[in-house]
Amino acid sequence: MAATKTFLTGIQTSGEPHIGNYVGAIKPALAAAESSDTLYFLADYHSLNTVKDPDRLRHNIRSVAATWLACGLDPDRTVIYRQSSVPEVFELSVILSSVTGKGLMNRAHAYKAARDRNAEAGSADLDAGVNMGLFNYPLLMAADILVMETDYVPVGRDQAQHLEYAADIAGSFNHLYGASYSFPIPQGVYNEGDAAVLPGTDGRKMSKSYDNTIPLFLPENRLRKLVRRIPTDSTPVEEPKNPDSSVVFQLLTHFEEPARLAETRKRLEAGGMGWGELKDQLFEAINTEVAPMRVRYERLMEPDSELDGILAAGAVRARERSRRVLAKVRRAVGID
Amino acid sequence: MAATKTFLTGIQTSGEPHIGNYVGAIKPALAAAESSDTLYFLADYHSLNTVKDPDRLRHNIRSVAATWLACGLDPDRTVIYRQSSVPEVFELSVILSSVTGKGLMNRAHAYKAARDRNAEAGSADLDAGVNMGLFNYPLLMAADILVMETDYVPVGRDQAQHLEYAADIAGSFNHLYGASYSFPIPQGVYNEGDAAVLPGTDGRKMSKSYDNTIPLFLPENRLRKLVRRIPTDSTPVEEPKNPDSSVVFQLLTHFEEPARLAETRKRLEAGGMGWGELKDQLFEAINTEVAPMRVRYERLMEPDSELDGILAAGAVRARERSRRVLAKVRRAVGID
Repeated sequence: MAATKTFLTGIQTSGEPHIGNYVGAIKPALAAAESSDTLYFLADYHSLNTVKDPDRLRHNIRSVAATWLACGLDPDRTVIYRQSSVPEVFELSVILSSVTGKGLMNRAHAYKAARDRNAEAGSADLDAGVNMGLFNYPLLMAADILVMETDYVPVGRDQAQHLEYAADIAGSFNHLYGASYSFPIPQGVYNEGDAAVLPGTDGRKMSKSYDNTIPLFLPENRLRKLVRRIPTDSTPVEEPKNPDSSVVFQLLTHFEEPARLAETRKRLEAGGMGWGELKDQLFEAINTEVAPMRVRYERLMEPDSELDGILAAGAVRARERSRRVLAKVRRAVGID
Repeated sequence: MAATKTFLTGIQTSGEPHIGNYVGAIKPALAAAESSDTLYFLADYHSLNTVKDPDRLRHNIRSVAATWLACGLDPDRTVIYRQSSVPEVFELSVILSSVTGKGLMNRAHAYKAARDRNAEAGSADLDAGVNMGLFNYPLLMAADILVMETDYVPVGRDQAQHLEYAADIAGSFNHLYGASYSFPIPQGVYNEGDAAVLPGTDGRKMSKSYDNTIPLFLPENRLRKLVRRIPTDSTPVEEPKNPDSSVVFQLLTHFEEPARLAETRKRLEAGGMGWGELKDQLFEAINTEVAPMRVRYERLMEPDSELDGILAAGAVRARERSRRVLAKVRRAVGID
């Protein structure tokens, strides 16, 4: 094998990015200097399983792409492309379906979670509301990975099973057709420790499904208002406060400098610092970090920005690779 | 709607055609003058679920295409193409998966038959040996049909459920996205009465899975030998025979002229006609019908024949249509 290893990261496009995505996923992904051969793809067809409003999907795809670029993804050093721009993915998923046992999909976590929810709700049909996109998700993800001859996939621990499936499916293919062509067996790359999970404005995990997010690139005045509205208790200004029970302080830990953060903790514990002041500090800390990126984001989100050109160029580079791989796979199975 | 209706016929490529396929499927399909807008596709990726030998698959695909052309399919008046030449099919199947309930696939006949076989064999895992290609088959078939905006699909009654699924899936899509784009709802066209089923050389239904077929385009001397080897009972030449209990006579009914057939029946019933003579008559009857087609078939099966050019031209015409349809579908769902 060549010395250069291929890294592939999939990016969800099912919602507009929030500061939880930024701290927990985008920042660590871009900080890890992985390889000279790094690819990012926007999993737009995966999003179709949950987003049925075409205008919203269109907006989300642009917004997510613009966010990663604004946060520092360099389209000259890496390749960023839309899954939907690489039709070889879908053809490969059909080929892989012929070497993939249904039992594997039956045991997939995301599908089982949907069945568990139906069981808890007392539904007689455990597959109620489950669409084939959800059921086939691990198969399509295997195709996303294998069509690029990926070696490493940086993912959260929650995706470990899907990574194992991609490796299993590659192994089944190689066992049958290895005399002619073999996929590299992909491996997951997991963060050391847990990814940071930010609380939402209501104290639960920040998630668009709870409607408690702080969107990453809110205009400055709206960001200020949203931070101002985070619920706090009614402890008076002069009384001591427990920073660790405060959502505002928890959010601050991800944006404030360590020295200033320690000082803030002391002032809260001593009494004399009110929630309003803490919220202003949080707003300033977030805004200081995101303001330069927001400028880039807003420029990319304009209708005729360079965004589409960047994605089109990425698609060309991605397809050079996917076409080459699919041609080898087709020859191996006898469809050529 | 335009007056011209689109007819689409799928052709299996999982084995070399035999005289049962010819009498039961190919001949009636080509005899039905359906529409000025008629498409045939070779379902080569469906075959991948059962044919794992690439050289055999390659041969079967060419052989099946050459057979239909030799039997009279006119590539100037109709479009013949390989499923694998139309990547829009696979992308559409991913789109359709997002509007297809898993429950539909759970109830598909072919999948349920596989589970029943496992249950009868006492297997604890009813999905044992079931691959995702089999499970997803009705979804891919819906994409085959819908990507061509098909109105009518001539099929056997055994495919009626899959046709209903394609119509259901089109309906689900139209319900969600109909403001922007709607598929025509496809309908099955079923033969009047049952399709002819020929007995194989062992008296069971002729089927490659029983290894009892008479390949359609065997060379003449091998056809003669194979017909000669059909087992018969040991009734002496001079004794009366029951034509209806004879596989040889049953096969003859599909190839002999009615007057000559009635005469042969009388001679068998009267006694004085032996099995050897009946077999010679069967060989002559088959050979008379297939000989001119066999010449065309053999020419098409030569390595650098016009076959590949015909399929390539068909692919171009098929993709003009599939690209146009997929573009509308992508716009409707928000992936454009």
